[in-house]
Amino acid sequence: MAKELVFGHQSPDTDAIVAAKAYSYLQNQLGFDTEAVALGNPNEETQFVLNYFDEPMPRIIEKAGSEVDAVMLVDHNEAQQSVSDIKDLTVTHVVDHHRIANFETSMPLNYRAEPVGCTSTILTKMFDENKVEIPVQLAGLMLSAIISDTLLLKSPTTTDDDKVAVKALAEIADIDYETYGLEELKAGTNLASKTEAELIEQDAKSFEMGGKQIRIDQINTVDLDEVFARQDKLEAAMAADAKAQGYDLFLVLVTNILNSDSRMLVWGEPKDVVEKAFNTTLTNNTASLPGVVSRKKQVVPPLQSAF
Amino acid sequence: MAKELVFGHQSPDTDAIVAAKAYSYLQNQLGFDTEAVALGNPNEETQFVLNYFDEPMPRIIEKAGSEVDAVMLVDHNEAQQSVSDIKDLTVTHVVDHHRIANFETSMPLNYRAEPVGCTSTILTKMFDENKVEIPVQLAGLMLSAIISDTLLLKSPTTTDDDKVAVKALAEIADIDYETYGLEELKAGTNLASKTEAELIEQDAKSFEMGGKQIRIDQINTVDLDEVFARQDKLEAAMAADAKAQGYDLFLVLVTNILNSDSRMLVWGEPKDVVEKAFNTTLTNNTASLPGVVSRKKQVVPPLQSAF
Repeated sequence: MAKELVFGHQSPDTDAIVAAKAYSYLQNQLGFDTEAVALGNPNEETQFVLNYFDEPMPRIIEKAGSEVDAVMLVDHNEAQQSVSDIKDLTVTHVVDHHRIANFETSMPLNYRAEPVGCTSTILTKMFDENKVEIPVQLAGLMLSAIISDTLLLKSPTTTDDDKVAVKALAEIADIDYETYGLEELKAGTNLASKTEAELIEQDAKSFEMGGKQIRIDQINTVDLDEVFARQDKLEAAMAADAKAQGYDLFLVLVTNILNSDSRMLVWGEPKDVVEKAFNTTLTNNTASLPGVVSRKKQVVPPLQSAF
Repeated sequence: MAKELVFGHQSPDTDAIVAAKAYSYLQNQLGFDTEAVALGNPNEETQFVLNYFDEPMPRIIEKAGSEVDAVMLVDHNEAQQSVSDIKDLTVTHVVDHHRIANFETSMPLNYRAEPVGCTSTILTKMFDENKVEIPVQLAGLMLSAIISDTLLLKSPTTTDDDKVAVKALAEIADIDYETYGLEELKAGTNLASKTEAELIEQDAKSFEMGGKQIRIDQINTVDLDEVFARQDKLEAAMAADAKAQGYDLFLVLVTNILNSDSRMLVWGEPKDVVEKAFNTTLTNNTASLPGVVSRKKQVVPPLQSAF
């Protein structure tokens, strides 16, 4: 069987990196020849997680076609979030927990999606279904991915399946997940050391809605004011990135992980559609979004509807 | 939980009808409120199967939006093969064994696809994973669907999973599947009683390739010459249907189920792309395709590549 690469989305978060490692491990146990790779550098949270469990970061690639003909996607399916030459490759497997859009194949494939909080939750079930044991370190990584995606099981994307998976993985990894989880989330909020260009890019994803190119980033913090003290420079970085990449609209969702509130920063047009989507009025390009912590569940769908 | 409708593709074959019934039964056992419906009349093979196992045909619908907000798709995902108001509905679940194309959601969903011969094979696994017993008559229907889609396990789409499912279902239904299967397939080849308009429509599906609207039908027979004796009238029916519906290209794959050979009849343009796809030359709008029996595996992919 020809080798395949397994990877998550660009601007990888912890789940994108971990799910690629976990799915590659599972598929290799089942007889496939795969390698987990990544489409970008790890963020500080992911770096903390990999260090904590003493696991290597996958090799970073930009294109896959020079190495393989076929690939497996985790934690994404939309072409603009994937490897740059995705249109030239055959996608044989997908494991994901997002909506399906801008995804097309010419052949039947394996596709497993469930509306749960994290890809690693689905993978935890798939290890069980295939009767493959999860190694201790990998269980720690998968636990960390679920903590990251669900903000320690507090995000509205959290399902019972995520809770069950967290308990099972914490047992295998022998971790007190609540203490560890807060430490992990805080590791991702060390923002002072980052440039504005890094902050608006580190967890950004692209979407196409109503013919417009839209970029949505999320920044986790323990202090919203600390981030908005840098608003002018953040807006300049958003404008520069948007011009370079051709984005019409750029949203940055800044989320306080301690109390689950967010404030949004908006660059570009159409701003009236953003105001309609969130039933709010922008003041100095910002708006408070109390209780909004999930891009996937609380930002993309209302924006999609408004467009 | 609000009621949802479950259905297969337009111009339903046995799997489209049976998979809807089977998935609806499974989901109802798991606590959902669903009803299996169909997007067209049963063909003669399906009618034979339903009679044989004394099971009712699902109610036929054209639109779903007046009854429900959300639906579950089986045996298809492409919008042009689905209910006419699919764009206004939320798709919450899909179980399918085809390529993914022209399918988009705004919310995460359950999607289960595997590259096996029949949707009912995947469903057989899902009953097992969810520890739900398959009732005897339903096992007979699901067995019939796999026999239909894989031409009694002889189509190149057949996988080991299909063989395992057939054996398990035959045991539950207490059926000698080889004897029964030939009887079932022959029931679908009673072509003399059908008009040319019925023949080109009964198993037809629509595709979009390279901006062209393409219609592909398949007719199973035990005698190719009997079908091609009606070539002039078949071409007239294809032309009339194409003009009414806006198809650019219409292919009818006529398959001899006894020796697994096909002959193709082509109407419309671009014919040179069809010749390139199958590395053949059309004579009087026809070409022999020895060993070709699967639209999904042997017709759609080469055509897609050629476009």
